Amino acid sequence: MFRVAVVGATGAVGGTMLRVLEERGFPVSELRPLASARSAGTQVDYLGIPRTVEELTTSSFEGVDIALFSAGGSRSRQFAPAAVAAGAVVVDNSSAFRMDPDVPLVVPEVNEDALETHKGIVANPNCVAAPLVVALKPIADEVGLERIVLSSYQSVSGTGVAAIEELRSESAGHLDGREPEPAVYPHPIAFNVLPHIDTFDESGYTGEERKVMDETRKMLGMPNLPVSATCVRVPVMVGHSESVQIETTDLISPDKVRELLMVAPGVSLVDEPEANRYPLPRDAAGRDEVLVGRIRADSSHPRGIVLWLAADNLRKGAATNAVQIAESIVTNGLLRGHQAA
Amino acid sequence: MFRVAVVGATGAVGGTMLRVLEERGFPVSELRPLASARSAGTQVDYLGIPRTVEELTTSSFEGVDIALFSAGGSRSRQFAPAAVAAGAVVVDNSSAFRMDPDVPLVVPEVNEDALETHKGIVANPNCVAAPLVVALKPIADEVGLERIVLSSYQSVSGTGVAAIEELRSESAGHLDGREPEPAVYPHPIAFNVLPHIDTFDESGYTGEERKVMDETRKMLGMPNLPVSATCVRVPVMVGHSESVQIETTDLISPDKVRELLMVAPGVSLVDEPEANRYPLPRDAAGRDEVLVGRIRADSSHPRGIVLWLAADNLRKGAATNAVQIAESIVTNGLLRGHQAA
Repeated sequence: MFRVAVVGATGAVGGTMLRVLEERGFPVSELRPLASARSAGTQVDYLGIPRTVEELTTSSFEGVDIALFSAGGSRSRQFAPAAVAAGAVVVDNSSAFRMDPDVPLVVPEVNEDALETHKGIVANPNCVAAPLVVALKPIADEVGLERIVLSSYQSVSGTGVAAIEELRSESAGHLDGREPEPAVYPHPIAFNVLPHIDTFDESGYTGEERKVMDETRKMLGMPNLPVSATCVRVPVMVGHSESVQIETTDLISPDKVRELLMVAPGVSLVDEPEANRYPLPRDAAGRDEVLVGRIRADSSHPRGIVLWLAADNLRKGAATNAVQIAESIVTNGLLRGHQAA
Repeated sequence: MFRVAVVGATGAVGGTMLRVLEERGFPVSELRPLASARSAGTQVDYLGIPRTVEELTTSSFEGVDIALFSAGGSRSRQFAPAAVAAGAVVVDNSSAFRMDPDVPLVVPEVNEDALETHKGIVANPNCVAAPLVVALKPIADEVGLERIVLSSYQSVSGTGVAAIEELRSESAGHLDGREPEPAVYPHPIAFNVLPHIDTFDESGYTGEERKVMDETRKMLGMPNLPVSATCVRVPVMVGHSESVQIETTDLISPDKVRELLMVAPGVSLVDEPEANRYPLPRDAAGRDEVLVGRIRADSSHPRGIVLWLAADNLRKGAATNAVQIAESIVTNGLLRGHQAA
């Protein structure tokens, strides 16, 4: 049994982490929910019992075996070293350490082996990159990958609980004829789409797009793979979708791709378009698998494959993957100092 | 002055055609609103005066100079020949005749010359293809185009007024905790995205995607251009957006693309991302220009450009373009038999 801290326990991802720990029966001897001073003292539910959220400080991690962080990059940078110093393994959902060459960036179905070299911190990937590599790894292994082009359709829960509330209130207001007053996003999100997630850099790509491109390369172990992403926020509560175009090294048929994905870990093939069955964010919400469908030969490239996927960004894109990493760490004896009795 | 029939005058596009005829001061001597028997007898407003909608029959077109059709492909196939026989020029918004080699498919900013050979019918392009060629023609002319890959974010008004009502009622229901009961679409559209527009063919592409690919090639005059489209419905009322990736023959810089589009007819450059200015469907709604922005060098291809566009699908994607075609026909003396006095 293990002592588990959840940092950011009152957030959208932190709350989902508690649910996923419960569902998967993670062997927790002590659950320590942590958050900023603002949320300290509130309660979160775990296994049906209310738990008081403690304030996150550098001394929050005494005796902790595993610390699941999801409280933003600056808190990770500030507090993860303290957790590591206390002997915990940190599974960090922020982007703070993902591209650090000393930090494994892991989706267990794709590159579980990378965990073996961890030095106390393991990074949990971006919520677009994680489902993408789950879907593409079997294809890359079979025929090689030469390029990825993708456009995303990302739900507001990726931003957090305030964004979910903003979409709800703006939608209700719109239906009542009121003008929206956006606060979380720079423009209204209700009945709109925003081609803007994270900040823009000089190249014209956003930070979110860079994360998707860089993290995909790192997890696939292909540091020079050409990848281009356009990341777009859509008025969906939970569930990110992706329109994906790949170019493979060797030719592969759509049927062969379906055959590979049918048995791929973490993938649910949903590809019967004639019966109106294809991945939908609404159907992905609440599930741990990446739904993949609309697989077809790219009419614009001789070795191109086009596909569409949807995944729960709070689960496979965040909490489920973090708990899977924790499971792998425990199962493979990769905990640090004070192994629990 | 010209006698103008509007077929499908009670629909979302037909209604917009009336607004655009008014706004642009099209010289109308007689306005004849037509619709199916179900809608005949209702009234539509034109220049502040209610006009009674007449039932569409084969004898509806006597004396008509220009017939703007937007009542679906089967009605176009059934009634356009009667309009042509009566001496009218038909501008058809359906897909019925678009790929007919004898029918010009025209966006005036792109291929106005094609009108000269019309034989009575001119086709108005698909609402994704029209804005796309407006944005890409100046680039194709400057450096050549070798491939287009796009993913769309299409509003429900492209489906029609029933779909707008379905999105409204499903959204209100969702906020009240009621389960949606979709009728227009096979799945709920509120707070969801549907990678399904039109029917699927054996290749796995949809009819909508085929239209975008085929019509883009025809309008650009590049019958062998590799194009791949993924068309997706999003919960937006009006305004289609497109995430577009192109490969050019010769290298072109993002700055040069901006320079070309700054002066391109029908384009409004909205590309100051650092000031949160980029094309949004909400901003495109009600406007005739195609908004283009997020122009950047493709990080995955040496001669790639990535851009994002938004356009009012009822206007430049349909009604405005149809009226522009009518204007060009009139201006260039391309009317048929009974030229009005």
